[in-house]
Parts: sequence; structure tokens; C-alpha cells
Amino acid sequence: MTELASKAVDGGITAPKGFRAAGVFCGIKAKGLDFALIASNGPASAAGVFTTNRAQAAPIVVSRRNLSAARGRAVAIAVNSGCANACTGGDGLQHAEAMAAQTAATLGCTPEEVLVASTGVIGVKLDMAKIARGISSARAALSPDGGSDAARAIMTTDPFPKQASAEVMAGGGTFRVGGIAKGSGMIEPNMATMLGFVTTDAAVAPELLQRALKAAVDETFNAITVDGECSTNDCVFVLANGASGVRLGEADYDALVKALRIVCEPLAIGIVRGGEGATKLVTVRVTGAASNDDARRAARAIANSPLVKTAIHGGDPNWGRLVAVAGRSGSEFVLDRAAVRIGPVELFGAGAPHDERAPDAAEYLKQSEIVVDVDLGTAGNGAAQMWTCDLSAEYVRINAEYRT
Amino acid sequence: MTELASKAVDGGITAPKGFRAAGVFCGIKAKGLDFALIASNGPASAAGVFTTNRAQAAPIVVSRRNLSAARGRAVAIAVNSGCANACTGGDGLQHAEAMAAQTAATLGCTPEEVLVASTGVIGVKLDMAKIARGISSARAALSPDGGSDAARAIMTTDPFPKQASAEVMAGGGTFRVGGIAKGSGMIEPNMATMLGFVTTDAAVAPELLQRALKAAVDETFNAITVDGECSTNDCVFVLANGASGVRLGEADYDALVKALRIVCEPLAIGIVRGGEGATKLVTVRVTGAASNDDARRAARAIANSPLVKTAIHGGDPNWGRLVAVAGRSGSEFVLDRAAVRIGPVELFGAGAPHDERAPDAAEYLKQSEIVVDVDLGTAGNGAAQMWTCDLSAEYVRINAEYRT
Repeated sequence: MTELASKAVDGGITAPKGFRAAGVFCGIKAKGLDFALIASNGPASAAGVFTTNRAQAAPIVVSRRNLSAARGRAVAIAVNSGCANACTGGDGLQHAEAMAAQTAATLGCTPEEVLVASTGVIGVKLDMAKIARGISSARAALSPDGGSDAARAIMTTDPFPKQASAEVMAGGGTFRVGGIAKGSGMIEPNMATMLGFVTTDAAVAPELLQRALKAAVDETFNAITVDGECSTNDCVFVLANGASGVRLGEADYDALVKALRIVCEPLAIGIVRGGEGATKLVTVRVTGAASNDDARRAARAIANSPLVKTAIHGGDPNWGRLVAVAGRSGSEFVLDRAAVRIGPVELFGAGAPHDERAPDAAEYLKQSEIVVDVDLGTAGNGAAQMWTCDLSAEYVRINAEYRT
Repeated sequence: MTELASKAVDGGITAPKGFRAAGVFCGIKAKGLDFALIASNGPASAAGVFTTNRAQAAPIVVSRRNLSAARGRAVAIAVNSGCANACTGGDGLQHAEAMAAQTAATLGCTPEEVLVASTGVIGVKLDMAKIARGISSARAALSPDGGSDAARAIMTTDPFPKQASAEVMAGGGTFRVGGIAKGSGMIEPNMATMLGFVTTDAAVAPELLQRALKAAVDETFNAITVDGECSTNDCVFVLANGASGVRLGEADYDALVKALRIVCEPLAIGIVRGGEGATKLVTVRVTGAASNDDARRAARAIANSPLVKTAIHGGDPNWGRLVAVAGRSGSEFVLDRAAVRIGPVELFGAGAPHDERAPDAAEYLKQSEIVVDVDLGTAGNGAAQMWTCDLSAEYVRINAEYRT
């Protein structure tokens, strides 16, 4: 696939034309912005990917239903932080529906055209008086410059807001893509949510948008891990309102996926950088796999291995742990032809260790951005990449602290 | 299944009649015992289970081959600690074969009747002069009282030796079962091995012994986790020499599995207790699953979850994390009928939280032995149990320390 012509622009989720956003304080969190609204000036195509967790939070259930009922059209995304509205039973479902309906009423669209998301403590009900206040303040504050506030309002205990936006030349014209995300950090116990929201002013049919979002998410948000946990509230939504005048069709599928990846990749990497206790960003690249699925499985096993993550934290070029994890991952693995590189240093290759190079690798590991390459040694060309962070004592401290 | 009549006895792996063992120092480790020999006075039926890791250490390859060549008969098990003989290529295989052949020569059996195992640093070759010294010293030291020395000689950085033995009434008589094990602790970087050795003076045909060992290991050594890692050297061997005069046949299969479990279970739990940085032993019990496989999958996900393990370390009765992990485990899960108990305290049931009971659960979590129950809420009767430990900052410190 050829590269896509693009350049970074400011504005995050409101960089594309015809989108406004706001981030306000409604009192669910003790302080800081806690309610975000993202609205298209007119109806937009919409698509979403949702957590595979079978304990699905109420907003996941309601947004999936709305997306289907409105046949892939939406006008707005309403999001609160501080409360996940998960494990809240029938009341929780009613609250998520009311959040969509009240947002719709203030924007003049149907409830089905509103997607909702929540992030925060599990097992606590939404305070609907506060949500009503959030909706009305956010409606009043909606602005084409509101992207930054929205990015801050969806944070729980993320160390920094995450937004990205770009201008893309494709489909016979120029259009923009923007996005915001919050992390899978579980810095406050029971926080367990990765949210991502993307906008574009290209015109895209809902079905094509859904396929392209899935493909882009598989290589970005689904290729990161902090601690291997998948939450009750994870979701990524995209709205495409066509305000740029550029229409993307089936022939532009590859370009559309790439355009979405341009914002999803930095947002996903931002989540890892902001992972709990993280001090290093680690890119795990696997090659020589029997298939891409095998490569993905091995990359995921390595990216989630506490032994690999602690070794990198400690600056230890421990290639034996990488071999052992690749070998146990379930993917095809041929020890005698496998290889392990830490940065530019090959420490194991063709069945033989090169421990005399360990000092070079240890020097490389002092950097804050680490690349680890593992060749599984099969005859295949399967390859995959994942991003993860190191595992520090700070992660344990953060997650072991008593909640109350 | 009915209970098996049994009583604990002393002696560990040499408690059964007709077995001798020794643990000696041959210089592979800087200090402490590092070579163990376990020998039957006559040929015994033998069975083994091996790591599923595709990066298989040389002794795994050789022992599997010998077990097959000798058609399930063996006389002795020779084990060194301090060096895993893993990722050592063709030389490694020759060394493992020589270790079996030299042991066979000194005992007067065939090389195929010797099983070998190694544990220690990956990527370093065995010093065969030291191994030869180990074999000859251990041969001289073989004794019916040598079980304790053997248990110590297979340790790497395990905090304590692990042995168990019992007298069992079954098969129309009384026989004994004994065993030793070392932990999956990776206290020294690159240590990655769980070894277990079991003896019995019952007479059992090799095929029956293999099936019973597999069944016993599935519910014991395969039902524990410290950090979810499976090593290049993991193995469990059993020798059955018939010296008690009791012969167990197909009709005694259940009794044989139970007899093996009587020693394998405390050895497995001992490994968890001695897990790196562990301060609490945690029993995870899953019920209400669609199948036993589903229950096992959910129990394993919970037992390996860093969020669950850190919460227990911090004494936080965080039922939301248990719900979220059960939900993402891939097993069938019905949120509205699921339940979570920490010790005797139900914190979530029938879709509703009981956070008012959190103080009772927090009090319970101060104990050093914790039981967590999760009902997946399906109509099925699937159930499973796993043992794990908490995740402490000490685990990170141990594994992040630089090797050299």
C-alpha cells in the first residue's frame, strides 16, 4: 500500500469541518471537567467498535442499540467521566437511555442519533441530576474550538489528555480527521475504560465506515496493552459528516483506513505512554511467523508478560525471557531458527546466544522508547506489532491502594 | 468419588519402599546443593508430563525420548539446578544425553532408563565435568533417607524446599506416595522452571500411570500460577516400582489419581506460597459455568489478572475487577445472575452490588489465605479451582534487577 499524503493540523476532534465540542464540569468527579459533548452540525454516518467483555456496561448496550436503530447515522456523542454506569442493572440502562434522550432533545435530533459512553467507578449509579446539568452546560458551550476541553473531560486519572488531528489528501480532495482518547489506566481502583472518539468531514457510507473503523482499530487501539485487561466500557466511535465535500467510496477503502489510523495510532500510543506506572514505551515487533494471527498472538503474549515488562523496567537485556514467552504463546516457533533483537542488538540468533553483546543492549535499554524484535523462525512471513509499557513497582502501588 | 483412606508420613520422595535419593554439591551453583539423584532399587513404571512451551530445553527433549524408547520404564531421575541447559543447541542435547548415559553407567541400567531434568539460567551450557562429579557423589550418597537433600538440591531460589508423602489404603493393600517439587519462582532472572518428581511403591502399568499422572497434574501443578509464565524446562515425572506388593489396575484408576493428588496438591500449593514476592495464598473458585473448561478459563484469567492480584495485595475488596475479568475471560458469563464472594462476604449478586459489606470483606482480606468465589451466572454446573498469589512491588523488584 502506498503512503497517504497528509499533514498534522491542530484542533483534535473539532479539526474536521462542521463539528463542535465542549467539556464541562457537572459534579460527578470531585473536580475537573467530567462531561463531554461532541456534535456534528448535521447528521453524520457513524460506526462503533465495542468491548468484547461479556459484562457490558449500560452505555455500551444503549449505544450499540442506537447505532443499529438509526442505521449507522448519528449526530452527537455524550460522555461522562467519574462513573462507569457498569453493573448497575435495569436502572443503569434507563439512565443511559435518558442521557441519550436528553442530549437529543437539546440538540433537536432523535435519541437514536446520540451515542453515549461512560468511564469511571464500576457499580455506582449515574446521578441523573448532574448528568442533566452536564448536558445543558455542554450544549451552551459547544464550539468549533472545544476539542481540547472535550479531551480533558473524558479523562479519569490519565496523566495527560490525548488528541490528534490531520489533513488528508485522498478521494479526489482534502478532508480532515480528528480524535480524542482516554487511557486504560486503572489509576483509581475500578477505573477500567479505554474510550476513543474520531470525527471526519469526509462523506462515507455507514457500512464502509464501520469496516474501515474495525480495520483501523485492530492495528491501533487493539494493538496496545498496559496490563492485559479489557474493560466493561471500552468503545471507539467515529462520525463522518461530509462537510469537506469529499466523498469516499469503496475504491477509497485503503485510504480511509489509513486516514483513520493517522489519528488512532498516536491516540493509542498516548494511552500506553500514560499507562499506570509506565516509564518506557515498548514496541514489540514479531516476524517470521506462520501467519499474521500467529504473529499477533506472540506479540500479545510478549507485550503482556510480566517477566518481559519487569526486565525492560530494570534495563535487563534478558533475551531468555523473550524466547520463553514466544515459545509458550501457542504460535508456531522454531527455536533453532528464531532470533531476538533488543534495539539494534541481536542477542540470540540461529539457536545461539550472543551474551557478549549484552552490555550494548543494556546501554540501549536506558532510552525511554524501546523496540524489541522477535523472529519466530518459521518459514512464514507473518508479522505483527504491539505497543506496551514496562511494569514498575509504581503500577503495583497504584493498584493495591485501598479504594475507600 | 469417595474419599481415599490415607495418612501423612515422613520421608518425601523416599517415603515409598525401594527408593533412594541424594542431594549433593557439584559446583554449578556458587553454593548449596545443586545435584539430585532419585533411584528405584529395581526397574519401575514411569510417566511424565512436559512443558507445552515450543522452546523446549535439551533435558525435556531427551527425557521424552527416553521415556518412549524404554516403553514407560525407568530406574532413576537425575536433576541439576543452577543451569537450565535451554537454548543451547546441539551441544545441549549431547550434554543431556551424556548426563543420562553416565548416570545409567553408575547405576547399571540402560541410558533410556534414566530421566533427566535441569533448572536454572537459560542460554548457558552444562559444565559436564561438574555434572560427572555430581553423578558420582550422588551415587555414593544414595540413601532411603535422602529425600530431604534431594528436595533441597533441585531448588534455585525457592524460599523453602517442598516435599510431601502419604500412606494410602487402596487396591486391596497399603502403599505409599512421595514427592518433591521446586517453584516457578524467577527470583534470579532467567530462572523459569517448575519441576515435580513423584514416587510410589504401588505397581502400576506404564499406560495407566501416564493417564493418572496427567489427570492428577491437571488439577494440581496445572492449576497454579504465579505470573502466568510457562517455562522451557517444566516437567513432572512419576516412578512406580511395586515394592509395596500392591498392584493397581484399571479398576483402581480413581484411587491412583487421588493418591497422586495427595502429594501433588501440597507440592503445587507450596510453589504458590513460595512465589516471588507472594504474601498471600489465594484460592480462586469458579462455579455456575457452562462447562468445566469455561470454569477453568475464567479461573485462570482471574488468577493471572494483575488488577485482581494487586487488589488482594492491597486488601481491597474490589469485586468490580473480578466481574470485569470474568466477563473478558472468553467464558460464558451472565451479568444479571453472576455473583462474587470474597471469603464469606457476597459483594455482588443477582446483578446488584452490596458495597455496604465491603468493610467485612476488607477485614477478611487481612488474612494470609484468601478464598475468592465467582459464580458465572449461567445455567451450567461447570466448576474449577486455581491457586495463585498476590502481586507485590517485591515481585517487580525481584524481576527488574539487572542480571549481571
